[in-house]
Amino acid sequence: MMDKQQMIESIRSGMPERRWQHVQGVISTAIVLAKRFGADPDKAELAAILHDLAKYWPVDRMEEAIREEGADLGILSYDKELWHAPAGAYISRRDYGVTDIEVLDAVRYHTSGRAGMTLLDKVVCLADYMEPGRDFPGVDGIRELAENDLDAALRAGFDSTIRFLLEKGKVIYPLTLAARNDLIRNP
Amino acid sequence: MMDKQQMIESIRSGMPERRWQHVQGVISTAIVLAKRFGADPDKAELAAILHDLAKYWPVDRMEEAIREEGADLGILSYDKELWHAPAGAYISRRDYGVTDIEVLDAVRYHTSGRAGMTLLDKVVCLADYMEPGRDFPGVDGIRELAENDLDAALRAGFDSTIRFLLEKGKVIYPLTLAARNDLIRNP
Repeated sequence: MMDKQQMIESIRSGMPERRWQHVQGVISTAIVLAKRFGADPDKAELAAILHDLAKYWPVDRMEEAIREEGADLGILSYDKELWHAPAGAYISRRDYGVTDIEVLDAVRYHTSGRAGMTLLDKVVCLADYMEPGRDFPGVDGIRELAENDLDAALRAGFDSTIRFLLEKGKVIYPLTLAARNDLIRNP
Repeated sequence: MMDKQQMIESIRSGMPERRWQHVQGVISTAIVLAKRFGADPDKAELAAILHDLAKYWPVDRMEEAIREEGADLGILSYDKELWHAPAGAYISRRDYGVTDIEVLDAVRYHTSGRAGMTLLDKVVCLADYMEPGRDFPGVDGIRELAENDLDAALRAGFDSTIRFLLEKGKVIYPLTLAARNDLIRNP
């Protein structure tokens, strides 16, 4: 695996400074949440460093990575906002030499969620919702829930995403619904 | 197929009078919508007569019908409120001799919707949302949209269902999401 500092420099150089501040917020939040809920803080940190590496890539480049991996072509018929997550997971393995499947999955599902999320998936996804730079209706409620209930906080995050997409009249990614339903069914 | 009057008497006797008033509302609304949007009014009427035939059945009896048909066992892991629709479609065929697949599908999907809804599916589902006896937040908006835009009205119906389930913290049936997404993608 690439040296962490080198990885950080590579990823930071691929995004605007403002976005890097978001990534830093996700890193620190993910570490706090990992310690709070019993996930591995080192894995949480690594997944957080990687999670948005493809966020500012041109759409063509994201699509190319997704097609090259061939694992998740279905996502190409959903919103492009979702693409950076599987593209980032693939590039984390291919170019940064990350092989830990837990870390790669936490990157892959950090935007959409999925049914059967691991503890690490949940920590990274929730950190992305609630890092200190985030400001959207309901984010303070999510932060409050995250004080002691990981699943409730994450569910509130998914609910806010689904509500937002309802209001905008946009398609809702089925995996996000599956993630939310699963949190309700398997508490 | 069983004689229509006999069918009506059988179905009416299987539900409280208040529910039969709802069915009558759905019948008249479905006929109006069918004429407005170019569906077959006779099929719309028949599907509307049948749509809630299993609504007041004991849960065991609904489940038995669904298992006997064997077509849609997945629904058994979702809310029981959904079960009367596939159970009703199966019983429409088995006990009332209805063989028109368009009518049977309109019964089957009247609560959940589905991706790729037929015109008849849409008419019956929307009639069920907006018949004159219905009163829920947003129903007047749905009725207004239904004056000239079947898909927009139906989407508003699904949106209201999804919002309701978000508020209640209840599982959302994936087919309803698929129905809504499909209305957005394939207008």
